[in-house]
Amino acid sequence: MAADQRPKADTLALRQRLISSSCRLFFPEDPVKIVRAQGQYMYDEQGAEYIDCISNVAHVGHCHPLVVQAAHEQNQVLNTNSRYLHDNIVDYAQRLSETLPEQLCVFYFLNSGSEANDLALRLARHYTGHQDVVVLDHAYHGHLSSLIDISPYKFRNLDGQKEWVHVAPLPDTYRGPYREDHPNPAMAYANEVKRVVSSAQEKGRKIAAFFAESLPSVGGQIIPPAGYFSQVADSREKTSSLTSSPWASPLATATLLPAWPQPSLWRGHLKPPALSTSTRGVGLFIGVDLIKDEATRTPATEEAAYLVSRLKENYVLLSTDGPGRNILKFKPPMCFSLDNARQVVAKLDAILTDMEEKVRSCETLRLQP
Amino acid sequence: MAADQRPKADTLALRQRLISSSCRLFFPEDPVKIVRAQGQYMYDEQGAEYIDCISNVAHVGHCHPLVVQAAHEQNQVLNTNSRYLHDNIVDYAQRLSETLPEQLCVFYFLNSGSEANDLALRLARHYTGHQDVVVLDHAYHGHLSSLIDISPYKFRNLDGQKEWVHVAPLPDTYRGPYREDHPNPAMAYANEVKRVVSSAQEKGRKIAAFFAESLPSVGGQIIPPAGYFSQVADSREKTSSLTSSPWASPLATATLLPAWPQPSLWRGHLKPPALSTSTRGVGLFIGVDLIKDEATRTPATEEAAYLVSRLKENYVLLSTDGPGRNILKFKPPMCFSLDNARQVVAKLDAILTDMEEKVRSCETLRLQP
Repeated sequence: MAADQRPKADTLALRQRLISSSCRLFFPEDPVKIVRAQGQYMYDEQGAEYIDCISNVAHVGHCHPLVVQAAHEQNQVLNTNSRYLHDNIVDYAQRLSETLPEQLCVFYFLNSGSEANDLALRLARHYTGHQDVVVLDHAYHGHLSSLIDISPYKFRNLDGQKEWVHVAPLPDTYRGPYREDHPNPAMAYANEVKRVVSSAQEKGRKIAAFFAESLPSVGGQIIPPAGYFSQVADSREKTSSLTSSPWASPLATATLLPAWPQPSLWRGHLKPPALSTSTRGVGLFIGVDLIKDEATRTPATEEAAYLVSRLKENYVLLSTDGPGRNILKFKPPMCFSLDNARQVVAKLDAILTDMEEKVRSCETLRLQP
Repeated sequence: MAADQRPKADTLALRQRLISSSCRLFFPEDPVKIVRAQGQYMYDEQGAEYIDCISNVAHVGHCHPLVVQAAHEQNQVLNTNSRYLHDNIVDYAQRLSETLPEQLCVFYFLNSGSEANDLALRLARHYTGHQDVVVLDHAYHGHLSSLIDISPYKFRNLDGQKEWVHVAPLPDTYRGPYREDHPNPAMAYANEVKRVVSSAQEKGRKIAAFFAESLPSVGGQIIPPAGYFSQVADSREKTSSLTSSPWASPLATATLLPAWPQPSLWRGHLKPPALSTSTRGVGLFIGVDLIKDEATRTPATEEAAYLVSRLKENYVLLSTDGPGRNILKFKPPMCFSLDNARQVVAKLDAILTDMEEKVRSCETLRLQP
């Protein structure tokens, strides 16, 4: 494959010359060259091991041997479109249907989350005969023209809001208009959606669909993924049931329990000396919202970028999110372990302590290098 | 994988229940269950071997061992997004750039042809600041909302033509307004495009792009395909240079020669007793346009459907195309051999002869079963 690895600087130079600059790199000030990944770890060209807190897409872990083997067995036999009969596609649809409410019983398999959302939009418009869409503020629904139009996260920086798009406020009880101290924030945010719909209808607009979040997608060509995703489903079930497997972990098992107290684990460990935070999330998907002070809840954007950069130097891959890019977004693969969580929290604590000392001695927080 | 094959009737019943009916099957009156494919052959659940004249997408042949192995080697090591540095993506971009004009030197790798065309549209609109698009009649540019809008093949059956879409006639010298007998059909069709553009501009419309055909696409997640497509490129080069390889063939070699006289080979063999035809194409991509009579050139739609159905019974997979669905569309993988071509032509000849007898004895041509 790539037996002769190029030096990292050469790879970067070629990338800057040949690949559009709108295809962004993580850690653009000092990007990482990743040559290998396994489970919850990624490895650079020097062999350094990084804990991966980004790749939720590598659901049961990078290069899971059972998943890789399933793909290989299928690729050796057949990889074609879905215009012939095949068992995989119907078997997988049947398996999915068993996990879903009875009404969700007809399946389309698509190439990406973006293609799935574009089709959802087409179906809604075809069914209702209407054109308009209600979306939540800051939402991202995909990178296609049709989805950029319904993604405030995107269109605010591009062509702006189309007349057929109606934006309701994000039901954010931390920074939105209705917060923890409101007697009924759920009702208040629901009323906001009602208000947005009424206002659109008064202008004669007709709503085709509400997009509250991205739909789940099942990617790639049809037949191999059916086998591939069945294997992912198998592996996931095995991960949660066989705690003796190297792929199992207390955290992964715990994600299947609704009452798993992971955010409070993080909250307990994280004693930010320089920043206040609000930690929230479900299962392994956690956001740590960094703010400059509790009163204004001003996003600590630069501090978040600095933290992520320092964590990378400490072999932890993490990204930020949110309109203020101030939320540390933890979304590791499911095989992420309690030990991994402890390591990441310890590194985060050390960096925060160091930041506090820098701030006390009036040093500027600057990104490396 | 699918060790326990379901009976074909069960697969069909499950498919009809679980998969949307808008996901069409080939040969809907009696679909084929394909369980395996290799090179230019597909195999059904009974082990019957079909010659595949449809799968140009399986470029160097179904399940090419070198391509399958390249995918497997990559999948074992790393399968992630393109936000880290990696050699495969830059190596492949460099290799592509060597085959293209100097100005085509910046690359975007996308998930599908549809996503590529959607991005092309976004780039053109962003660069020009204009919105409108000129397309050729009958064109198909992809299955996304934005591309259905610029695909007359699609929008004529759906929402119709948007005011920002301008359709120029297809430069078809067989059935279009300017034919073989015109002194300069190329100039005449170019003038049609000019006329369409002028007419749009007179209405104050501003053209962002001309879409003359689908752009080539490079699919899937970034890193594996870079290796995968490099391997396809390797295999293609090997196919054309090593005539002793089982994957090489005189036809595949010949596709690389611009003056290869394949359409005339077909024309020579095909002596349609019941139908007139016009055969055209480049390399292995050939269209045989079936008409009811030479004077009107009326598309022989039912006859084409009947032929394709009979060919399938004779273990040849073929599809039709064109606005009249009367063009037999041959687009086999590149490993399709001269022997395969002779077999297909012989079967086609036999079916046409049989059709002629049926027509003489006033039998109705009916699709099986």
